[in-house]
Amino acid sequence: MRDIRVRELWQKQQCAFNGWLAIPNSLSAEAMAMSGWDSLTIDMQHGLIDNAALVTMLQALAASPCTPMVRVPWLDPGPIMRALDAGALGIICPMINSVDEAARLVEYTSYAPMGGRSFGPIRAGLVDGPHYQASANQRVIRFAMIETRKALDQLDAILQVEGLDAIYVGPSDLSLSLGCKPTLDDVEPTVQQAIEHILERAHAHGLKAGIHSQTVNFAKARKALGYDLVTTASDLRLILAGAQDLMKAWRAP
Amino acid sequence: MRDIRVRELWQKQQCAFNGWLAIPNSLSAEAMAMSGWDSLTIDMQHGLIDNAALVTMLQALAASPCTPMVRVPWLDPGPIMRALDAGALGIICPMINSVDEAARLVEYTSYAPMGGRSFGPIRAGLVDGPHYQASANQRVIRFAMIETRKALDQLDAILQVEGLDAIYVGPSDLSLSLGCKPTLDDVEPTVQQAIEHILERAHAHGLKAGIHSQTVNFAKARKALGYDLVTTASDLRLILAGAQDLMKAWRAP
Amino acid sequence: MRDIRVRELWQKQQCAFNGWLAIPNSLSAEAMAMSGWDSLTIDMQHGLIDNAALVTMLQALAASPCTPMVRVPWLDPGPIMRALDAGALGIICPMINSVDEAARLVEYTSYAPMGGRSFGPIRAGLVDGPHYQASANQRVIRFAMIETRKALDQLDAILQVEGLDAIYVGPSDLSLSLGCKPTLDDVEPTVQQAIEHILERAHAHGLKAGIHSQTVNFAKARKALGYDLVTTASDLRLILAGAQDLMKAWRAP
Amino acid sequence: MRDIRVRELWQKQQCAFNGWLAIPNSLSAEAMAMSGWDSLTIDMQHGLIDNAALVTMLQALAASPCTPMVRVPWLDPGPIMRALDAGALGIICPMINSVDEAARLVEYTSYAPMGGRSFGPIRAGLVDGPHYQASANQRVIRFAMIETRKALDQLDAILQVEGLDAIYVGPSDLSLSLGCKPTLDDVEPTVQQAIEHILERAHAHGLKAGIHSQTVNFAKARKALGYDLVTTASDLRLILAGAQDLMKAWRAP
Amino acid sequence: MRDIRVRELWQKQQCAFNGWLAIPNSLSAEAMAMSGWDSLTIDMQHGLIDNAALVTMLQALAASPCTPMVRVPWLDPGPIMRALDAGALGIICPMINSVDEAARLVEYTSYAPMGGRSFGPIRAGLVDGPHYQASANQRVIRFAMIETRKALDQLDAILQVEGLDAIYVGPSDLSLSLGCKPTLDDVEPTVQQAIEHILERAHAHGLKAGIHSQTVNFAKARKALGYDLVTTASDLRLILAGAQDLMKAWRAP
Amino acid sequence: MRDIRVRELWQKQQCAFNGWLAIPNSLSAEAMAMSGWDSLTIDMQHGLIDNAALVTMLQALAASPCTPMVRVPWLDPGPIMRALDAGALGIICPMINSVDEAARLVEYTSYAPMGGRSFGPIRAGLVDGPHYQASANQRVIRFAMIETRKALDQLDAILQVEGLDAIYVGPSDLSLSLGCKPTLDDVEPTVQQAIEHILERAHAHGLKAGIHSQTVNFAKARKALGYDLVTTASDLRLILAGAQDLMKAWRAP
Repeated sequence: MRDIRVRELWQKQQCAFNGWLAIPNSLSAEAMAMSGWDSLTIDMQHGLIDNAALVTMLQALAASPCTPMVRVPWLDPGPIMRALDAGALGIICPMINSVDEAARLVEYTSYAPMGGRSFGPIRAGLVDGPHYQASANQRVIRFAMIETRKALDQLDAILQVEGLDAIYVGPSDLSLSLGCKPTLDDVEPTVQQAIEHILERAHAHGLKAGIHSQTVNFAKARKALGYDLVTTASDLRLILAGAQDLMKAWRAP
Repeated sequence: MRDIRVRELWQKQQCAFNGWLAIPNSLSAEAMAMSGWDSLTIDMQHGLIDNAALVTMLQALAASPCTPMVRVPWLDPGPIMRALDAGALGIICPMINSVDEAARLVEYTSYAPMGGRSFGPIRAGLVDGPHYQASANQRVIRFAMIETRKALDQLDAILQVEGLDAIYVGPSDLSLSLGCKPTLDDVEPTVQQAIEHILERAHAHGLKAGIHSQTVNFAKARKALGYDLVTTASDLRLILAGAQDLMKAWRAP
Repeated sequence: MRDIRVRELWQKQQCAFNGWLAIPNSLSAEAMAMSGWDSLTIDMQHGLIDNAALVTMLQALAASPCTPMVRVPWLDPGPIMRALDAGALGIICPMINSVDEAARLVEYTSYAPMGGRSFGPIRAGLVDGPHYQASANQRVIRFAMIETRKALDQLDAILQVEGLDAIYVGPSDLSLSLGCKPTLDDVEPTVQQAIEHILERAHAHGLKAGIHSQTVNFAKARKALGYDLVTTASDLRLILAGAQDLMKAWRAP
Repeated sequence: MRDIRVRELWQKQQCAFNGWLAIPNSLSAEAMAMSGWDSLTIDMQHGLIDNAALVTMLQALAASPCTPMVRVPWLDPGPIMRALDAGALGIICPMINSVDEAARLVEYTSYAPMGGRSFGPIRAGLVDGPHYQASANQRVIRFAMIETRKALDQLDAILQVEGLDAIYVGPSDLSLSLGCKPTLDDVEPTVQQAIEHILERAHAHGLKAGIHSQTVNFAKARKALGYDLVTTASDLRLILAGAQDLMKAWRAP
Repeated sequence: MRDIRVRELWQKQQCAFNGWLAIPNSLSAEAMAMSGWDSLTIDMQHGLIDNAALVTMLQALAASPCTPMVRVPWLDPGPIMRALDAGALGIICPMINSVDEAARLVEYTSYAPMGGRSFGPIRAGLVDGPHYQASANQRVIRFAMIETRKALDQLDAILQVEGLDAIYVGPSDLSLSLGCKPTLDDVEPTVQQAIEHILERAHAHGLKAGIHSQTVNFAKARKALGYDLVTTASDLRLILAGAQDLMKAWRAP
Repeated sequence: MRDIRVRELWQKQQCAFNGWLAIPNSLSAEAMAMSGWDSLTIDMQHGLIDNAALVTMLQALAASPCTPMVRVPWLDPGPIMRALDAGALGIICPMINSVDEAARLVEYTSYAPMGGRSFGPIRAGLVDGPHYQASANQRVIRFAMIETRKALDQLDAILQVEGLDAIYVGPSDLSLSLGCKPTLDDVEPTVQQAIEHILERAHAHGLKAGIHSQTVNFAKARKALGYDLVTTASDLRLILAGAQDLMKAWRAP
């Protein structure tokens, strides 16, 4: 069985540095995997990853120690179970706004009796080995995204849903939902307050907390706040930001 | 920001000529895009387009002035938001049969406070520019497909759902639902009556109306009726019809 | 119109031998299609088949007499109708646990008035010919997977849902749900009892019964029990088992 | 063993009607295959077909009676043998300008002792059956493209190369090479003369003759001249021409 | 007809800033295309671009003003003509070591009477319009890579080959060939001398000169030297370098 | 730097057990990689592997200890260097029939001064690390396929070409060339004699010898003969043979 680096860090009370994959390609994924991230999340919601790319990208991560995670498009059993069968060891699910939704996330990501995940870990079992079935419920990391006012209103109830491992904050959607400008880093005070509140409640309920950022400075600031997993910079963002820097340098006298 | 040709035509009270893409390929899409359509709709319901092809096909349309639209497979938030993030500027959603379904269509296609679309316009923002977030709710065109008896029964209520831009008639499904033979063009009188009724009610509520046709003659007849967007002939249909004509000519003495 | 071998066998009260496709590739699919199966099922649930591969795999089966079937990821109208439009003549739907779910399966797989399948059989009509629309409701084989305790509790009610053609047993999930070790072949007595009970009730209601197995010996035993379609060995399993045998032979003195 | 429709027609002294595939997609290929062509040629030279599409396109032709042929990119052993192994039963090779080149074409397309084709008919053997090896040298149709002044100068010598089955005229390149405007149909007199000369010499040497055309009228005229295989209209051309017709009809008053 | 930005800059005696695409993906290509490069080169030699990706990547560049170029794998007519037919307006050909090789590069990239390029500009003609055939010989930019001692020895003769537009220096291969460590930027003095010599001779013969660099500082230095096109940073390099920077920042106290 | 298992075994005078990949898919490749082979060869000659699949398949092998090798389509610099850049650590080149061809194989697979391989190990360097350039000439294993009478005639001269690591016998082509029935295992006496002769000469010149087989029994027999690498059973063959066994068992009473 492979080690799960994110869980190892958490056991040592350390913060995981998570990268983000938006390009549907296994070569960019492999380049990221060689770069030292603790985990990499394949974004099937806003990233343009399709199911064929998902498989080759998970394979491209397999030789590196980073934990392979997937942000699924929505709280639907089909894509969630598929990502797990393909070998994802962490699931980040958007828009968990109620106890019922949180419970369904656990149900879809857990075998009976804990949940109702259908059995057939085609690649997960191949890569992880024969013990996969017995350990998957304990190994898979379930992140519920807290990113709306509605979710904030239900926060404590959501956090008590058994089987949830962590929450994950999406600052852009949270900003939009709270009537603020959607941004990942330099959020408005209302949003910043919510970010701190969610962290505090998650820890109070014994859950871990992750959060999306754009730049490493904000990622570090949120680590300093106490977040347990911080994301920065997708592969696509690195290309865009890097090219922008080059243009600036090129045009400079 | 790109102009949206369909909206421009509508502002001038003109009818848009919409083409249809069923082949999951960017070269056929580009050939269609070079052919003068006002808009092209990538059919993810009955067409065989997958998510990887969706991206490359939207890219193949980018250099042409035609408005890129997607018919989504069903009223599901995942695929709808994904099509928007990939750059679709119009969404045609099948089987909108109730006020609740129409409202969900608006919700899935609109950022807060108008709806609950999740923020992350990965390609849409790249192509459209930094103003995308502020303008997307106004720019994206939402078509609710009216194609069942049930929808007809709820028509006025559906048409009052705030945020809906247009309806789109699917004559085949409408025919089936009304107990008639499924056909796109030469529909039975009951269906023709419904087609005219839907148009009249849409305009009465200030919405635009689009409709599917197979041949250009019927498309023109429906334009003459007052429809604001008419579809004809998919890429696949052009191949099949064109080859049939060749065979006939070849075998003729 | 193509013959549907599974239906032909059933009319003769014979058992169909079903193969399983988990590799998203048309060459492995074609190799399987040349191997003599009565039907082949493309697994979009646990197999790693994406929508692009689905199309090419269905095409790879078209020159052989085996019946092309698809196990869909979940009871969702989008993917089910899409598989049918692409040319599947059988649908195996996982996790049918209630009368309502069984009724929805029929609804999604049948044109009006029998159901609410949307009309647009893009490849199915191309391959099957102009009579597809009139005959599809009778030709498509609908399998409801019975694989939970909940489904067992509702079994007779589920089996009475009009339009259902057959049930399909997933021994692994059924085992998990009944508190047993998930396995396909050598199941615990409780599961074996359920397997026999489901068969007896299906036949009592005039439905056919299919079941998943891993090895041909168990497939034959289940045929002997009276099952009407038995599955064994996916393409991927053949590779893994074949390679394992080679390794053993290689290392033997 | 599959029948080879082109060879059957030739035995009856009839002309084969050949379609052309330029879009790298198996669905457009299958639509063409259902349209009644005697043969279909996958164009790997000017068409945008890649090696992955080649395989799925050949599979898409397998259920139809049309003969699957490939125009290879160039006189290179790798791609030629690969097309044959994938199941092509005809090879059209561009730019055969000398006896040596014609001889190499035969060598690359024939097993020893006739040539030096490497043995491993992976899909061809699968589809054609165990007799493939013994019959391939007789079954595969070898077309040498005659399309330059240089080839004209060597014509009789080229036509005597043992193993060649046919020549294939590319009117555009031939026009260019003769200093005329490149066109497929309405060629300048010098080119027309060459087209008739090549045909006459091919028949004199007992070879068959094929030719590329754009429209069916010119294809028929060339059939009337005595050509044994005439090509018209690629899938892409059908889309472009069909869409152009629609635009004209749409804009007509 | 599209403008060719590189030729425009050259007419104004300005230096073009060229980006490099190594990831076989149209989304990363489009992100690069939105970033302001004067030209982008799709690397089919060392980059991992396949023929299917080539098409979608060229399409992804079509909406931007940057000139689409391809570095072909080798001096082979098949891939070179294919890149041109797919829409490349510049060809960078590796390892041109002799007059004969330079002449063949011109031959493969030029229609008769200038060369022997086969006619069939499937996508190039579609995108560029009906004048493509008449102007292609003048529009396509032909770069011969000078990157070996052998080429240096023949330099003046190579530069006199009619039809060549430019040379392109590969500092790594040039270094290896001159017995130095392969590096792109900080080359050994022998190599630097060669780089300056090649530039001087190219200009003396009226040819333009391009060169590969890794960092923008060296690109600017080479522009200052007089190079007419300088390359820096592939998409893949931007990901690797950007991720490395993030790791450093993350680990910094 | 990764260990190269084949070289390790050879240093211990042991025989490597090589598997074969003919299906262009990364999942079947990964399943093979998990099965214990010492090396796996991706067959780009007779297998249907395209360049896109090559990359994902090499990635699918990266987490396993088996040595990734590629059989290239032909002795062409483009595809050979591309396979190396993508990460192949062994190259099997078909149809090496002369000293010149053997020398070219070494040239294409070796950096200067040993050869003329162009520098740009995009994925090889990423996966192998910064020392790749300095060690590649020593690490890459070069197999020249000896499979014709012509090669036999030149055998000793070929074997003396500096830089060659091994030969690889293709029994089918060798049989054809010697006028025998093409078969992999139970070859005619003339071929068997050649197989033993080649082995003896290879060892006499200090080279290793590999050979293709179909079944494990023949593989073992050839190991017993002294061959240093023996191949058996492609992924596709495992499917076909496995399915055939199942059919036999199914039909048995």
